[in-house]
Amino acid sequence: MSLQLYYAPGACSFVPHAALELAGAAFEPVLVKLHKGEQRSPEFLALNPRGQVPVLVDDGAAITQIVAIGLHLDARFPAARLLPPAGLARTRALELFAWMNNTVHPTFTHVFMPAKFTDDAAAQASVKAHALARYRELLAELETAVAARPGAWLGGEAPGLLDAYALTLLRWGGFAGIDPTTLPQTWALAQAFAALPAVARAVERERLKLNVHQPAAA
Amino acid sequence: MSLQLYYAPGACSFVPHAALELAGAAFEPVLVKLHKGEQRSPEFLALNPRGQVPVLVDDGAAITQIVAIGLHLDARFPAARLLPPAGLARTRALELFAWMNNTVHPTFTHVFMPAKFTDDAAAQASVKAHALARYRELLAELETAVAARPGAWLGGEAPGLLDAYALTLLRWGGFAGIDPTTLPQTWALAQAFAALPAVARAVERERLKLNVHQPAAA
Repeated sequence: MSLQLYYAPGACSFVPHAALELAGAAFEPVLVKLHKGEQRSPEFLALNPRGQVPVLVDDGAAITQIVAIGLHLDARFPAARLLPPAGLARTRALELFAWMNNTVHPTFTHVFMPAKFTDDAAAQASVKAHALARYRELLAELETAVAARPGAWLGGEAPGLLDAYALTLLRWGGFAGIDPTTLPQTWALAQAFAALPAVARAVERERLKLNVHQPAAA
Repeated sequence: MSLQLYYAPGACSFVPHAALELAGAAFEPVLVKLHKGEQRSPEFLALNPRGQVPVLVDDGAAITQIVAIGLHLDARFPAARLLPPAGLARTRALELFAWMNNTVHPTFTHVFMPAKFTDDAAAQASVKAHALARYRELLAELETAVAARPGAWLGGEAPGLLDAYALTLLRWGGFAGIDPTTLPQTWALAQAFAALPAVARAVERERLKLNVHQPAAA
């Protein structure tokens, strides 16, 4: 039994990274330097032809997709309660997990990499501006979900995958000019999550600063 | 115990619709007429403030998101094997499910509703054209996954959620000018799936024509 996680600092790979630490799993973290294009190296493409992090390698099997990796880790480490174990609580958590993954996350991709959606420079600027406004709305929607959470954490009593994703999405907002402290419930949750000793190991390994927002010059 | 499914013909709500029929579940199908704007009625928005189908109502609890609804039905009807039950087979199925949901499905949204991504008409045309080319690539990637499937169906031995999603994504391609018969493995899978007596009930209720592609006029 061996586990490797291919991750890039600050990317959505933080979600399984934090989860592995929360589960107390023995794993090998493998840094992929996106700015050096390592995700397009033949070695990495052999693991994931889509050239994206994260990749979890479990006994030689390369697994992609945050949702699939998250559910795989949840099944492998049930005691960690990375998601609620059953019933409507689990379904509600999966609803939030899927929405983060198929709506909030790709909206940020439109802000950060508009060239993925059109080759035209003027159209890229338009897509980016539209997505930024939408991302603000989605973080506001996330703030409402955080305020209505079923316990201390987004999944209830145990910190897990949803808290890690919320931290990541909020942090990305900082790069897009959204001050995370203006979303006080999500900001408090992200800080409390990052301060957990297990999660702090992942935060330190990625050298993450939680608030990357740069106030506009006066 | 009661189940209602709010669906619209041909929408992604076909995925839980087919799954409910495969599971032999007693459920009430509730048609939502999107062309009449019923998804924005106060009654529907009370169920799903995002104004989208599908919504599964399970004993009064409204559940959204294809992935969450699918996993909810899988847990509720384990004998139906809507997904492989455990292990790497399950993880591989979830990987494909998540990718269909967060990549293929939203790429079609860019083709079908480019106004969701920019207000500028010229930029919308550019986004649409870019997404259409991308959608062709993604259906080709799906064709490869279908060819490499682990059994008769995408999840292995039992037909389930993945086959329903593949049928839906392939069918949508027809509206975008992609002839489904040019993807022979996926086309054969979709036809075999639609012909299952349980699935045929959902197809008939939605009055679905599998191949909606219109050949260009000579």
